[in-house]
Amino acid sequence: MNLSYYPLDLKLKHTFQIARETRDIQKNVVVLLKDTDGVDGVGEAAPTRFFGEEVKSVSSVLDQSIDLLKQANPFYLEDITLLLKERFPGDAAARAAIDIALYDMIGKKLKIPLFQLLGLKQPTTTVTSFTIGIDTLEKMCKKVDEAKDFPILKIKAGFKEDIETLRKLRKITKAIFRVDVNTGWTFHEAREKLNCLENLGVELVEQPFPVGSIDALRKVKRHAKIPIFVDEDIKEAKDIPAFSGAVDGINIKLMKCGGVREAIRMIHTARAHGLKIMIGCNIESSVSITAAAHLTPLVDYVDLDGHLLVTNDPYTGVTVDKGRLTLPAGDGLGVSPRNDKALSSSQDWCKQTVCP
Amino acid sequence: MNLSYYPLDLKLKHTFQIARETRDIQKNVVVLLKDTDGVDGVGEAAPTRFFGEEVKSVSSVLDQSIDLLKQANPFYLEDITLLLKERFPGDAAARAAIDIALYDMIGKKLKIPLFQLLGLKQPTTTVTSFTIGIDTLEKMCKKVDEAKDFPILKIKAGFKEDIETLRKLRKITKAIFRVDVNTGWTFHEAREKLNCLENLGVELVEQPFPVGSIDALRKVKRHAKIPIFVDEDIKEAKDIPAFSGAVDGINIKLMKCGGVREAIRMIHTARAHGLKIMIGCNIESSVSITAAAHLTPLVDYVDLDGHLLVTNDPYTGVTVDKGRLTLPAGDGLGVSPRNDKALSSSQDWCKQTVCP
Repeated sequence: MNLSYYPLDLKLKHTFQIARETRDIQKNVVVLLKDTDGVDGVGEAAPTRFFGEEVKSVSSVLDQSIDLLKQANPFYLEDITLLLKERFPGDAAARAAIDIALYDMIGKKLKIPLFQLLGLKQPTTTVTSFTIGIDTLEKMCKKVDEAKDFPILKIKAGFKEDIETLRKLRKITKAIFRVDVNTGWTFHEAREKLNCLENLGVELVEQPFPVGSIDALRKVKRHAKIPIFVDEDIKEAKDIPAFSGAVDGINIKLMKCGGVREAIRMIHTARAHGLKIMIGCNIESSVSITAAAHLTPLVDYVDLDGHLLVTNDPYTGVTVDKGRLTLPAGDGLGVSPRNDKALSSSQDWCKQTVCP
Repeated sequence: MNLSYYPLDLKLKHTFQIARETRDIQKNVVVLLKDTDGVDGVGEAAPTRFFGEEVKSVSSVLDQSIDLLKQANPFYLEDITLLLKERFPGDAAARAAIDIALYDMIGKKLKIPLFQLLGLKQPTTTVTSFTIGIDTLEKMCKKVDEAKDFPILKIKAGFKEDIETLRKLRKITKAIFRVDVNTGWTFHEAREKLNCLENLGVELVEQPFPVGSIDALRKVKRHAKIPIFVDEDIKEAKDIPAFSGAVDGINIKLMKCGGVREAIRMIHTARAHGLKIMIGCNIESSVSITAAAHLTPLVDYVDLDGHLLVTNDPYTGVTVDKGRLTLPAGDGLGVSPRNDKALSSSQDWCKQTVCP
């Protein structure tokens, strides 16, 4: 297989703010694989600094993977992904890009969509939440108003006036709220704020505490009526058992775990522990969001709106209508470059710069 | 899909005795699926009384599954297998037969072997153990002598003189021993006997205690130098977390868990807990033994000799040479009826009796 890649600077519609950071551009990397039969596969890395990744580290992993993949059989998914994990344990987003591209390629080679390769039925009733980032109350109200078609909103919290803000947002929408604290609360804050949230139509609260606060989660769960999920706390399957009994569910992201293959391992492990499962995302193009959408028949909650938050998605894939996801027709991921110009300009870039 | 089935009475080369039972014939059921494109799939149920199944209960599940599968798309593996589990929770062997037949059919439809559908590399160095059932010392010595080509023997234990027997067998073979107690020891027996086994080249000890003895396992593991595995204790993925830290590994069997799909869930769950994995079997024909052999790249220890213990295996599939497994060429499972006569006589039987 031949691996090439190019950087993808996704421009955000709104400045994106969560409990710990703010940004206007999400710097991703698109990976292209082509095998000796001329079948291609596309993947994407959406690195985050929180997990120690950035475009430079992704590029370094991809550079080193070119030789590793040159003689590889794309069907050897288990061996390839385990080898990459052994070599690049801290580079989950970079590995996810390759994993996704391999699954795209295998689907195309077998002439079936990814969900079918996984033994799943095409999802038809899946509804994603839409994310409302932290902003001034006025701007958050405006964002909620703009998102009025979405029946489920994921409201970013973890700031001083978050409960007051949620109360005000509750007055202008009937949407289901999921509240994502992104590690922003203390234990005492959580007890107080969870009580306040009980009458605000909140379906679940995500990652209230800093990573590793298992005892605090266990204590809060004893009293909380709202289900508590962890996200930042759990990267891959082996992280799950420690949280059994301490939370109600986990948020799985391809970029956090290293791709489709590890996501399935996590789903199986979480189910064995009776945990609920959300599939989430970073700010990503339609490439990796669509990959995640193929897994939605296996999960309980879907938060796949990353591609809706950007203005220059170079691909088309899963579409969203009033929150409802529809997978594209087509084999593998089913994604296509949005127009020839976007693809050719990036391929030109690719040829001129670092890619083989 | 059309489902038909016929009974398969496998005749044992030697009377088979383990800690709790003795038998000369293993009564299994072969399942045949055919879809509207004319693609077929074969599966097998090897029910055991220990888990509450027999030919009659398997037939009842299969009779009820005929209608369930009539309109089903074979690619909807997740939905079909979960529906069957919901309807027939206690009938894992019956469900395994359908699951295996579906995977065989999907492989044939996609024109790839099962291991490839699962993202695995063809196993080339996998070595199975060969089972030595309980018998008189003289006969056990004779069986060990007959099995001299096998580098790993699974010796059935759990009887009064088992340690003395193992000492004597150790004198006539250099093979690695795996000792399977099949629930036959008490806690005090285990402490004493495990000490005795330490110098006898024993790789692992399986299921020393009756089902549910987690505390005893945990205590024994603290002192035992030989890895302890559980088999009867763990049927499916959700049973695994309770044994984390109490044992070193688990034995997964398609007949116990309900097929390939649940076996993969178990493998992922066990790995997340850092447990070692053996894939084992009942007394089965080449149909379901070959299905399990496709999963061997995912496990640490292989015990797939069920088809070697019988004289009238109606199929050819995985072959065994000096313990080393070789998968058949061919799509899906890759198994074939041993001769036309065997197939046609069973199909005749099928047409004449209970099958549609």
